[in-house]
Amino acid sequence: MELYTHEYFMNEALKQAKLAFEEGEIPVGAVIVSKNRVIARAYNQTERLGDVTAHAEMLAITAAANHLGAKYLSDCRIYITLEPCPMCAGALFWSQIGEVHFGASDPKRGFRQSNPAMLHPKTKVFSGLLEEEAGKLMLDFFKKLRD
Amino acid sequence: MELYTHEYFMNEALKQAKLAFEEGEIPVGAVIVSKNRVIARAYNQTERLGDVTAHAEMLAITAAANHLGAKYLSDCRIYITLEPCPMCAGALFWSQIGEVHFGASDPKRGFRQSNPAMLHPKTKVFSGLLEEEAGKLMLDFFKKLRD
Repeated sequence: MELYTHEYFMNEALKQAKLAFEEGEIPVGAVIVSKNRVIARAYNQTERLGDVTAHAEMLAITAAANHLGAKYLSDCRIYITLEPCPMCAGALFWSQIGEVHFGASDPKRGFRQSNPAMLHPKTKVFSGLLEEEAGKLMLDFFKKLRD
Repeated sequence: MELYTHEYFMNEALKQAKLAFEEGEIPVGAVIVSKNRVIARAYNQTERLGDVTAHAEMLAITAAANHLGAKYLSDCRIYITLEPCPMCAGALFWSQIGEVHFGASDPKRGFRQSNPAMLHPKTKVFSGLLEEEAGKLMLDFFKKLRD
């Protein structure tokens, strides 16, 4: 029997990031969980869609809202392999999501660099889960781009 | 003959905001212009779509990228009736849009409140065009909500 731990869900996000990697997209994945069930999975699709707004988190927020038939995600948790950028943090603010769990930090483009208080005051934030795996995937991706 | 001035395009954005107003959405509109032609028009649809990411700017960015078949909007200008929020400013950052023109300021939820340097360093920012009309539309909307 599978235990539905935070690590289990972050690993689901990591699987999404790997799908992005395979498609030549910057490898970031996200899942949104409600009542301990995954209700949305997404990975970065900016290249495929030719759309800078198609980050994993944005696609997951839209999918979760569609699934729930509600635009606020107060009872949900999002697991993201990388620290969200200001756009995604701004979207997570509007969604009033209950918890944000991100793996690797993004010292260059992460929201904390722009404004660490960007998420909703009600949102609990956790970081570092599976950060090595998520970070390695990013490093491998950019190494491959340069080769 | 119509003169394609900044005011002309901001007025087009205002028309979009009025459509939002009529549909019971927070009245914000945006148009994106390339080579002095409007290539995308959008208004806030968060209620209709039940999606917090469906701000006028986000919809306009996606539509403009689809129109151009390119994800970067360096040669474009966006006209928005209200100062963009951090989510939309973050999206505009990624798009590397050439110019941002916004009408009314949003001292509570505008990006400048969060981080005034959120847009791309290459993006030129202008504000205040038709701000009275845009601001009045917002005030009328919230007054109607309270009545």
